[in-house]
Amino acid sequence: MSDKTTEKVTENLIEGRNPVIEAYRAGKVIDKLYIQDGCNDGPVMTVKREAKKHDTYVRYVSKEQLDRMSATGMHQGVIAVTAAYEYSEMEDIFRLAEERGEAPFVYILDNIVDPHNLGAIIRTANLSGAHGVIIPKNRAVGLTATVARTSAGALNFTPVVKVTNIAKTIEELKDRGMWFVCGDMDGEVMYDLNLTGPIGLVIGNEGDGVSRLVKEKCDFVASIPMKGDIDSLNASVSAGILGFEIVRQRMQSSKR
Amino acid sequence: MSDKTTEKVTENLIEGRNPVIEAYRAGKVIDKLYIQDGCNDGPVMTVKREAKKHDTYVRYVSKEQLDRMSATGMHQGVIAVTAAYEYSEMEDIFRLAEERGEAPFVYILDNIVDPHNLGAIIRTANLSGAHGVIIPKNRAVGLTATVARTSAGALNFTPVVKVTNIAKTIEELKDRGMWFVCGDMDGEVMYDLNLTGPIGLVIGNEGDGVSRLVKEKCDFVASIPMKGDIDSLNASVSAGILGFEIVRQRMQSSKR
Repeated sequence: MSDKTTEKVTENLIEGRNPVIEAYRAGKVIDKLYIQDGCNDGPVMTVKREAKKHDTYVRYVSKEQLDRMSATGMHQGVIAVTAAYEYSEMEDIFRLAEERGEAPFVYILDNIVDPHNLGAIIRTANLSGAHGVIIPKNRAVGLTATVARTSAGALNFTPVVKVTNIAKTIEELKDRGMWFVCGDMDGEVMYDLNLTGPIGLVIGNEGDGVSRLVKEKCDFVASIPMKGDIDSLNASVSAGILGFEIVRQRMQSSKR
Repeated sequence: MSDKTTEKVTENLIEGRNPVIEAYRAGKVIDKLYIQDGCNDGPVMTVKREAKKHDTYVRYVSKEQLDRMSATGMHQGVIAVTAAYEYSEMEDIFRLAEERGEAPFVYILDNIVDPHNLGAIIRTANLSGAHGVIIPKNRAVGLTATVARTSAGALNFTPVVKVTNIAKTIEELKDRGMWFVCGDMDGEVMYDLNLTGPIGLVIGNEGDGVSRLVKEKCDFVASIPMKGDIDSLNASVSAGILGFEIVRQRMQSSKR
């Protein structure tokens, strides 16, 4: 719903130059880094080097924005947002599918920004029998405490993998035999598509839907048949409806 | 998710004895009334009489709770929560179905307490082509500003009706030819049920599901086939999955 990043980063903050450098050196996973625009002295350059090394998403913001985010008032131009949960590796997803003797089924989230939506989708992914959730390393929300809570425990079971580039990841997974379907109003009605087999379900951002680049990589575009007066469903509700259409088709094809 | 009533009533408050009495006399719809326990003087008795006349849900709470809820600090033992939107009448639902030449399709919410869930379900109801949403007059959440916002405009199109007793309402609507299905894990897999025709979809509370009394009134109990490690889906996601299973079956039966 809302996309005001500064509102959401009130959890798991590490503030100040040395604390952030130490967190990197201790191997802590940093989801996002906020650095004061124009700040270029020694310790800040060290922070930037660590960020580059670890491929952290960095946003340059004004001192006022950092002041608003800061809980301690001592950010010294640097605030890091850490993950409340650990991310998994792509192999964890494939291992889980193999253990269960099932064709891989993953949810790919193209820029979900609301932590309640992310939590609800991880919960849905777990209950629809998916083997993992893939999210991007960028302005999308990471595994914050709110996400963990909203997932109702699903984060303990369902691997969540963070990738640099969703479009590139889709290409790599296609090489491993997966098919991709994204949800979009322009697509074919989901009941008319064959959504069985090893599949990745791509869910777009709350406001803009699936990005053009990602959509072009998908094999199918599926639409939920909408009848109402307004524009679109909530992102986590869409994910549930599309995800369980995949469940329905998998159940039917296993009956045959 | 959370059920802390006092946390949620920060919107649309009317505080103080005379302001509440005036609101009743001006015909304002009051969703809920909080009265200080043990407060029995003249004006408070007048408030109670008005509440009874209008069948308002009343909660008796401590002075400390009222102090916490109060925005003005001048509640005088009485705080009313008004609706941000107007409720509709049951006939509005049937009229809408008739206008569209469709069998009635309603969502009945048995005690949804989270305003984001209520908003998302009204949004889903609209987009699944339902003719209305029925909610109870009790501790469940009403049409607050958060609900309106989360509904993404659906509140302007989809009638929301408030009833005193969900079980009794189901009986009355059965007399008008409707069938009722509730979502519950113990039910039959939803794909195996016939959910076409004039139907009411009953969605339970976030924590406890559908209450026993309401469940007994339902003709069918439908379950979403769950495969995961955790307990249950988010209430608005469940509502979306069950609601669109009804859409799927309606589309199929109209093809035949």
